[in-house]
Amino acid sequence: MPRKPEILNCQEVARSRLFRVESVDLRFSNGEERVYERLAARGSAAVLIVPMLDDKTVLLIREYGVGVEDYELGLPKGRVEAGEDPLEAANRELMEEVGYGAKSLTKLKLLSQSPNYMQHHTQVVLAQGLYPQTAEGDEPEPLIVEQYPLADLDQLVLRDDFTEARSLAALFLARAHLSR
Amino acid sequence: MPRKPEILNCQEVARSRLFRVESVDLRFSNGEERVYERLAARGSAAVLIVPMLDDKTVLLIREYGVGVEDYELGLPKGRVEAGEDPLEAANRELMEEVGYGAKSLTKLKLLSQSPNYMQHHTQVVLAQGLYPQTAEGDEPEPLIVEQYPLADLDQLVLRDDFTEARSLAALFLARAHLSR
Repeated sequence: MPRKPEILNCQEVARSRLFRVESVDLRFSNGEERVYERLAARGSAAVLIVPMLDDKTVLLIREYGVGVEDYELGLPKGRVEAGEDPLEAANRELMEEVGYGAKSLTKLKLLSQSPNYMQHHTQVVLAQGLYPQTAEGDEPEPLIVEQYPLADLDQLVLRDDFTEARSLAALFLARAHLSR
Repeated sequence: MPRKPEILNCQEVARSRLFRVESVDLRFSNGEERVYERLAARGSAAVLIVPMLDDKTVLLIREYGVGVEDYELGLPKGRVEAGEDPLEAANRELMEEVGYGAKSLTKLKLLSQSPNYMQHHTQVVLAQGLYPQTAEGDEPEPLIVEQYPLADLDQLVLRDDFTEARSLAALFLARAHLSR
């Protein structure tokens, strides 16, 4: 594997309330130079939770996403607040979005979204031992929670209202973990 | 499922060479109003290719990603050019990045990256019937191509140098498709 490129310069070229874009000047080990843009992450990773109601049943949420302008099925997720532990954040989001707390929380994998263009990472967390517990979130409307048998995952991933790469990857990871 | 929120206003709030951020004013069907930001997609979807050297062996590439500032294993991918068919784009990227063309190209799934924050979609394409064929790309250095047995996918996804949600999802989708 080649030596990592040298970062010659990195500067902010655009920003909004949520997003920050950096331009990065690179020199590769063979002397080639490139200027790439990337989205800078704001602090810590996000969390994405796989809530298992029992050994066979996962809880999905149906939520409006303004990116795709439609309601989609997916897994609960959210930002890790400053000073918050990722597993604490996972449990808080689970209470806010799904109405359950978890007795057992297990880190499955730290996912990247686009290694070439985004600094962002998402910690996938398996939640087991669920008990009813709600917390106040900032959702504009209650999320619809649906039970789904993990055994039918290969059918779920063919549905047009289930498209998010991270949710899909997380469910496959959970199934592999639970079958070990 | 509730009626979709009404989009009251949508305006660009930041832009750079590659990225464009929009602010969207929404009114949900229960009357709640929110202002959300999203990344606007530039035209058509991206493609991500699962190149099968034979029925059991997938070809991975090792590439530097400035988002994660490291070399990572993943699948070849790229942008669909204006006027280009997604399957043509997949074959072109395969030639540029992996050094093979494909006799058979099959769409497996249109993935979203973040339904709440990004308009972007990625078409996952299964490439079979490979033959050696290169094409000139814009890579700063040759990508390293590695053969990997699809049967060992559950081990691959645990590796710290394989983290991209889309690549991970695509390999699980390919395995499910090929075992049907």
